Amino acid sequence: MTPLIAEFIGTALLVLLGNGVVANVILNKTKGQNGGLIVIAFGWAMAVFVAVFCVASYSGAHLNPAVTVALAVAGKFAWASVPGYVAAQMAGGMAGAFLVWLMYRHHFETTECADTKLAVFCTGPAIRSLPGNLASEIIATFVLVFAVLHMVSPKVSLGAIDALPVGLLVLGIGVSLGGTTGYAMSPARDLAPRLMHALLPISGKRDSDWGYAWVPVVGSLTGGVLAALLHSKLLMA
Amino acid sequence: MTPLIAEFIGTALLVLLGNGVVANVILNKTKGQNGGLIVIAFGWAMAVFVAVFCVASYSGAHLNPAVTVALAVAGKFAWASVPGYVAAQMAGGMAGAFLVWLMYRHHFETTECADTKLAVFCTGPAIRSLPGNLASEIIATFVLVFAVLHMVSPKVSLGAIDALPVGLLVLGIGVSLGGTTGYAMSPARDLAPRLMHALLPISGKRDSDWGYAWVPVVGSLTGGVLAALLHSKLLMA
Amino acid sequence: MTPLIAEFIGTALLVLLGNGVVANVILNKTKGQNGGLIVIAFGWAMAVFVAVFCVASYSGAHLNPAVTVALAVAGKFAWASVPGYVAAQMAGGMAGAFLVWLMYRHHFETTECADTKLAVFCTGPAIRSLPGNLASEIIATFVLVFAVLHMVSPKVSLGAIDALPVGLLVLGIGVSLGGTTGYAMSPARDLAPRLMHALLPISGKRDSDWGYAWVPVVGSLTGGVLAALLHSKLLMA
Amino acid sequence: MTPLIAEFIGTALLVLLGNGVVANVILNKTKGQNGGLIVIAFGWAMAVFVAVFCVASYSGAHLNPAVTVALAVAGKFAWASVPGYVAAQMAGGMAGAFLVWLMYRHHFETTECADTKLAVFCTGPAIRSLPGNLASEIIATFVLVFAVLHMVSPKVSLGAIDALPVGLLVLGIGVSLGGTTGYAMSPARDLAPRLMHALLPISGKRDSDWGYAWVPVVGSLTGGVLAALLHSKLLMA
Repeated sequence: MTPLIAEFIGTALLVLLGNGVVANVILNKTKGQNGGLIVIAFGWAMAVFVAVFCVASYSGAHLNPAVTVALAVAGKFAWASVPGYVAAQMAGGMAGAFLVWLMYRHHFETTECADTKLAVFCTGPAIRSLPGNLASEIIATFVLVFAVLHMVSPKVSLGAIDALPVGLLVLGIGVSLGGTTGYAMSPARDLAPRLMHALLPISGKRDSDWGYAWVPVVGSLTGGVLAALLHSKLLMA
Repeated sequence: MTPLIAEFIGTALLVLLGNGVVANVILNKTKGQNGGLIVIAFGWAMAVFVAVFCVASYSGAHLNPAVTVALAVAGKFAWASVPGYVAAQMAGGMAGAFLVWLMYRHHFETTECADTKLAVFCTGPAIRSLPGNLASEIIATFVLVFAVLHMVSPKVSLGAIDALPVGLLVLGIGVSLGGTTGYAMSPARDLAPRLMHALLPISGKRDSDWGYAWVPVVGSLTGGVLAALLHSKLLMA
Repeated sequence: MTPLIAEFIGTALLVLLGNGVVANVILNKTKGQNGGLIVIAFGWAMAVFVAVFCVASYSGAHLNPAVTVALAVAGKFAWASVPGYVAAQMAGGMAGAFLVWLMYRHHFETTECADTKLAVFCTGPAIRSLPGNLASEIIATFVLVFAVLHMVSPKVSLGAIDALPVGLLVLGIGVSLGGTTGYAMSPARDLAPRLMHALLPISGKRDSDWGYAWVPVVGSLTGGVLAALLHSKLLMA
Repeated sequence: MTPLIAEFIGTALLVLLGNGVVANVILNKTKGQNGGLIVIAFGWAMAVFVAVFCVASYSGAHLNPAVTVALAVAGKFAWASVPGYVAAQMAGGMAGAFLVWLMYRHHFETTECADTKLAVFCTGPAIRSLPGNLASEIIATFVLVFAVLHMVSPKVSLGAIDALPVGLLVLGIGVSLGGTTGYAMSPARDLAPRLMHALLPISGKRDSDWGYAWVPVVGSLTGGVLAALLHSKLLMA
């Protein structure tokens, strides 16, 4: 598997499982309807865990443009490889969102609320206030990237278990910092599925809330870069 | 323990714990009634974890005909051993389903709904649409087998912990992709208990929904084989 | 720490945390009231995990007479040490139950239902039918001991993580096989706290349900011994 | 990273994620509202896990004055370093609480109940009875520190996974022993955010319940020291 194929497949898996759990919890007549935050948070955590252990040995499993850019800022990833990684991640995010729609399409049909249908694809704020929402995404992504950069590696590889800490990190961020904007923390998890929402022939859909679309993008990139800068500063101290 | 005894015992344990959690959540007057998806998903995840660590060193712990066939397609398991493994898994699935019935039989008696009694044994679709349901089972099993094939092994055995990633994988698939058809992903978990439902003298039972029975079988085998083929293709790339 | 002190402390910790989660979920005005089966199952799982990693290196962390007897039957523990271990476990179980009462005593006072107060100390069947209840305890303890005997050890110690599989095993048994009798699986977890219920000056308490008290004792010992015998038989095959 | 910066950052992360999950579950209009004890307990568990793996290699990740003092009593930490560690932890706790307020401030504004706003910052008893509440905090912190002192280290570092047992320990304490006073177990988690509650311009806030503030402080320090003393005693036996 080449790194770009790995990033594509990994991000597709991540969004299939991650957006999949949202579909299961909020769409009509699913077996997981109203499963609540604990189900969603474990769903995203295991989505990250599975996607990372599948492709980590091929691409490093960034799976998120905010992570790729932050690693480049921290001097741990070549800038020249950033565009390819980001493109593969965005394509993967769109593919994953397509598969969620394919799998749950009968449930989309029996769900009336257009806001709910959009929420399967991308995040939206609990209380709309763009500066506050932006701050939320910055803080959440800062914690994500700061923790990833300080994650200690084992002396010898533990195999798939190596991917567990980042999954559990996302579990923690989800339950603790996801209450305001839904912890997008990644353009590949938010903008790419939002594009797919705009493209797919979903009956009774609303617009894709483009007025909010920039918040998770700018917020996640800003939070990730701030974490990389603090990381470098701390190491020099 | 011979490999076939191991597959029999492991699949029996898997179905005892897996179908057991369904019984606990949906039958009448149990201590776990209405525990919800999070309980069911953790129940199946731990069922896989326990069954795998008990027998992995004896048979490789396939515990699922779809996994056995996919491993054969991927060239990682001898075709000559497939029939024996599948037979042991099916027998194990029937034994596990029998034990669930034995343990929860008073609760079967106090449960009126015949559909609920059937659901303890085998899966059914949230919205019946056989092509869509088949697609769901194909996608879910594809993710299961694809991830199993890409699961990195530790440099040195971690003991029982080695079995945790596959358990957590099933947790993730359950909450994310289980919303449509209930993530059967295996003839030994679906067809074998369905046969036991047909055979057992359960008072007030309905028919075993044979019109749907082929969907999890064909879906899981197809999804597994597709994952094995993509895996081979990716390795050659 | 001598082995007997370790068994005493470990079982006290196990019952403090295990019965503690029951108190938190079922007593009146607690912060965890009505937390449901998922809270109880994780509480017992972490109780086992914590108790085992605290004392495993001193006594092997049996923490349960059914485990001690089964290990003796399997030839993995000296019969001469059984009485001391069992006595330490029973004393530990009583001490743990005392601490739960001490901690939650204001909540006992604000709880009217005498059955609820008893349920903090010991298990009772969801549907009373002694032969069926006995079968449930036998099956649950069989799975517990069978899995413990087949648990693979890591090549090198992983530290406290070594205790995680047995905790997760109890999580799985709890959600899957706990629906009928509440998965006592141990005289130290059921009979010892029941004795404490009889001894403590709990206002408005009922009798300690001595007619049921023998079921978890006989069931757990029988299930454990059966698992040990099958284990030996399988190894000879 | 110097040890003091590490303790500051680690405790800030701990309280950001820990108090953050409380905000998510109890404030108005959040995505996690009414998520229940299971969400809060996993939130605090992952908060501990993340904070510990981020800074353990720099400061040992005490993150709690009660742990620092107990380690000094046990002879495992220099008394001369205690004041600096405690100051860094308290400052970190205040910083974390500030970030929670910053992130959730629109939700503070839409929440009417002043008690709820206070509960995001610090603990309060389910039933007010200071001697009983003190006993609860002593028992909970005793279990925390006793288990930390008896936690076996792995032969070789497992990386971030090394921090998982202490996170799971806090999960267990939370669901089992958190029902009475909310398992503060640390002045940095309770007194420091309480100070921040007093200082911040939160509209419609109540007093910071100073009459209760000493209970988690005295309780956690007492429980920690008792555990350290028993630990020393057991090692000498």
